[in-house]
This record gives sequence, C-alpha cells and structure tokens, in this order.
Amino acid sequence: MFKQLGVIGCGLIGGSFALALRHAGIVPRVIGYSRTPATTAQALALGVIDVAAESAAQATVGCDIVLLAVPVAATEATLKAIRTSLEPGVLLMDAGSTKRDVVDAARRALRERIDGFVPAHPIAGKESSGIDHAEAMLFDERQVILTPLPQTDAGLLQKAREVWQRIGAEVQTMGPEQHDATFAAVSHLPHLLAFAYVSAVVNQPGGREFLAQAGPGFRDFTRIAASDPAVWRDILGANREEVLKQSQRFRTTLDALELAMRSGNSAALEDLIRGASELRGRWQIGQSGPPAAAPPPAPETD
Amino acid sequence: MFKQLGVIGCGLIGGSFALALRHAGIVPRVIGYSRTPATTAQALALGVIDVAAESAAQATVGCDIVLLAVPVAATEATLKAIRTSLEPGVLLMDAGSTKRDVVDAARRALRERIDGFVPAHPIAGKESSGIDHAEAMLFDERQVILTPLPQTDAGLLQKAREVWQRIGAEVQTMGPEQHDATFAAVSHLPHLLAFAYVSAVVNQPGGREFLAQAGPGFRDFTRIAASDPAVWRDILGANREEVLKQSQRFRTTLDALELAMRSGNSAALEDLIRGASELRGRWQIGQSGPPAAAPPPAPETD
Repeated sequence: MFKQLGVIGCGLIGGSFALALRHAGIVPRVIGYSRTPATTAQALALGVIDVAAESAAQATVGCDIVLLAVPVAATEATLKAIRTSLEPGVLLMDAGSTKRDVVDAARRALRERIDGFVPAHPIAGKESSGIDHAEAMLFDERQVILTPLPQTDAGLLQKAREVWQRIGAEVQTMGPEQHDATFAAVSHLPHLLAFAYVSAVVNQPGGREFLAQAGPGFRDFTRIAASDPAVWRDILGANREEVLKQSQRFRTTLDALELAMRSGNSAALEDLIRGASELRGRWQIGQSGPPAAAPPPAPETD
Repeated sequence: MFKQLGVIGCGLIGGSFALALRHAGIVPRVIGYSRTPATTAQALALGVIDVAAESAAQATVGCDIVLLAVPVAATEATLKAIRTSLEPGVLLMDAGSTKRDVVDAARRALRERIDGFVPAHPIAGKESSGIDHAEAMLFDERQVILTPLPQTDAGLLQKAREVWQRIGAEVQTMGPEQHDATFAAVSHLPHLLAFAYVSAVVNQPGGREFLAQAGPGFRDFTRIAASDPAVWRDILGANREEVLKQSQRFRTTLDALELAMRSGNSAALEDLIRGASELRGRWQIGQSGPPAAAPPPAPETD
C-alpha cells in the first residue's frame, strides 16, 4: 500500500504505528526520528524502524506516508521543519489528542501543502509510555478520530481511513471543535482529576503509607495518572478552555454529593450515586451511540 | 476447619466468600440469607449456599463461622437480630468498607458477645455486584484488613486470619481509626470522584453522545462508578468526615493544576503532572510500604 513510512517521534504511539503497519503488510520500510538520539537508537535496536534519520525533515525523504507523533505543542515547529522536504502526494498525519490547536498549527506551518494533512487522534494508550512499550496491536479494536479540513485531499483522506482500518481501528470523522469538546469530557478531564487525586493523596502526612493498602479500585482509577507528563502538559494546555468548562461541571456535581453527605441526606446521596452507577453499568467501550435507556436489574441491597 | 458457614447478605462479597471457603475445603455446608427472597433463592439455585434461611438469625443456627455482608448502615440492626442465636465460640465477621461505625455498632448490638466479632474489610471488588457475579477466586491475592477490638478473642482472631489466608488473601491488622483514614484516601474518595465525574459528563447537553468516543482511559477511570449505590451511600455516609477531609485536599490540588493551565504556566503544570505520574508509575498493587524513591527512566518527550 505504501513504499516507506516516516515516523517523527518514536514513542509509544509512533513506534506502535510503525510496528502495526509492518505487521499488516502495509509498508516494507520505516525511517524514524526522535529529538532524543538515544530514543531513535533504541527504536532502531528494537527493529521498530529500519533507518534512523538525523532530523525530522530527513525522516520524510522518500516517504509516501508520514506520522507525526510528538507532544501537541511541538506540532507547529515540527511541521515547519518538514514542509519543504515532504514528497508530493504524501499522506501526512499527526496523532495528537487535541485537534483545534493542531489544525491551526498546520494551517500556519504547511500553507499550500495543507491538502496532504489528515489530522488524526488514535484513542489508544497504556500505562507505560516510550518506545520500549510499543506494540503492533495497540490500535486493534480502538477508535481513531479523523478531523479533516475543507482543503484535505479526498483521496488521501480515504487512504488514511484505510490505513487505520487495516491495523484494526474503527475510524470516525468529526470537526476539530466537536473533537476537542468531546475529548475534554471523556479523556482530558479524567486525566486532570487523576493527576490531582494522586498528588493530593501522596502529598499529605502518611500519604505514601496509605498506598500500601490501595486495591484494584485505586489501580484502575489512577492508571491514567501515570501518563507522560510532557504529552499531558501540552494536551491540558492546548484544550484548556474546554477542560476548564468540564471541570466546572464536575465541581458542581461534587458539591451536590458532598452536600448530601454533610447533611446526612442519604436518599439524595443514593440517588446521585445511582444515576452514575446505572449509566456506567450500561456503558461499554466502543459502543456507538449513547448507552441504552433501559434500567439494569435492581442492585443487591441486602 | 469449620462445620457450617452462615452468610447474611448473599451478594458479590457474601457469595464469593461462600464459594471460596468451599473451594478451599474450609467448610462443607453453607446456609444463607438475604433480605430480598429472590436473592436467597438465586444463591441456592447457583449452588452458592446449601440451605436458604428465612431470617438473619436462622442463618446463624448451627454455624461456627458467620459472615455479615450487608451495606454498613444495616450492620447494627442485623447484629441485634442475630445476637441471641449465635452459637458459643462462633467466629463472626463483617465485610464492611468502613470500620469505626461497624465497631461502634457491634459494641452496642453484641454487648457481652463482642469477643467473637472480628471486624474485617476485604479489599476486593469488581465492576458488577450481586450474587450472579460471585466467584471463588475474588479474594485471591487481595488484601484483607482486620480491625480487632481489645475484647476480641485471640483464638478467633487467629482463626479469622487463617481463613482469609487460606482463600488467598494477605491479612493486615490495624485500628479502626487508621483504617477509615486510610480508606477514605485510597478508596472512598476515588469512588466519590468517579460518581461525580460520570454524573457531570452525562448530565450535560450532548453528554451521552460523548460516551461513544470514550476509550480505555475512561473505562478504567470510571469502573468504580458502577459500584452498588446502596453500599456506597452507606460507606460515604459512615466515613464522611474523613472523606470530606480528603476531598478538600483534592480540591486544593485541582485548584493548583487549573491555575497553571489558566495562567499558561506550562512548566508548573508539567511539574504537578510529573509528581503524580512518577509516583503512580512506581506504585504496584499489594506492595508493602510506600513506593520506592528512585526516579523512573525519563519519559519520552519527542
């Protein structure tokens, strides 16, 4: 399907994309670049890339598909660095978790080359970041959101769709604004809350000792708090307006729960909990559309 | 090891305890009772219990081990109901997630029979509650906290320890106050935040549609929001003082993160995130003592 993939940013996402494309027989050759030379060397040593480039621009030479997998704040500078070295007809994608800022950066940086750019957000991740954790199946049964621009070449958009589908992902298309509002709610705010929660627990007297008693609930609730700090600094910064809006909604709901606790209004407390519990009990990953409205069986209350 | 187990409250925990004891060859016969007759019948149909009792008191007759697995606010009334039917020398345990209130309730309800009571909190759970989800391995490799009273019979305390160990759990002992402060931090607050978060997301225009885009991060972060409403109404009510203290600490940290976002101070934002990320990256479930102080490898920032 392609001759050569260029990966700029050989971390978990960039490395996994290279492995996935190779595994699916989509591309025979991968050239990679990371800002930290040790990372590029490690990607080469692990066989994730075939050739180590010495610059972002060099990682695009001879490529008919290029993935930018850098923290979102580095998008504009990186696109500027590669603009003149991009081959005609290349499919250029990013993998950032925010899209309005990426689209704006691409407009400024790519100018007349904007038609080859397909903004992409694979909803995939794991507890550990970095090239050492890259895996070919990372995107399998995961969603990928594409936020094409009016100028985006229709043929390249179709190719982008096919690439992600062939490595197992389900592809959706939406506008960058809708994307950012949606992911502020379902991803960025949970990360912010998980960071705040872990910090609050450990930065108190005896806090670190508490953690020895933490169980599976804590483990799952805080998994995303182990995410890459630079990546999340950029995401929370880039999408701060939407994230702060969501956080305000969250605080209002937390206020209501605490008021019910404080006032000993256990019926109100249970109602608030039940609304969340029933909803979450019906939700399933990857289901299209909202959770079914039918109530679940009554919970055990003995 | 025992002749007969009595289970009062045949839900996920009570049912799993029965299955685990039978699986480990600890007890040949189980009698069970749930307030909802259909639940008791279902426990019988599933073979979790051998005999369905018609009252809590009847579920203790002929038993040398009894587990109370009811929402914590039902503890006192249930203990009062069984006090006179308890056999001499019986090991009586609860499974509540709070301990100060349970110990107080037991003192009032059991009076001179308090010596046979070993307050217990198994740190085990799953997304789904109810007898249908009970499983023999639920406590395997999980922690159980015992909070014995000064009057607790030493021989029964030792037996309690052995029972939990034989079904795979690691047993720890601490005072009820320390227990409640610890679990407010590592379990109760995360539940409160997860309930608040899920409610806030879905109760907004377009909120339910957002959920179709939610990925593995959302799934794990909100798993505990599906917990049983009656159980958590009681836990959050019983331990509200400690939970509200922890929530205040959380809000202060959230304020700091939001201030860094609002003011565009990306260095401060990254520092706050990094503290949480490094700590959580080193934490492992069931490790004794605080996470190691050594820094992890530098994250990928390309």
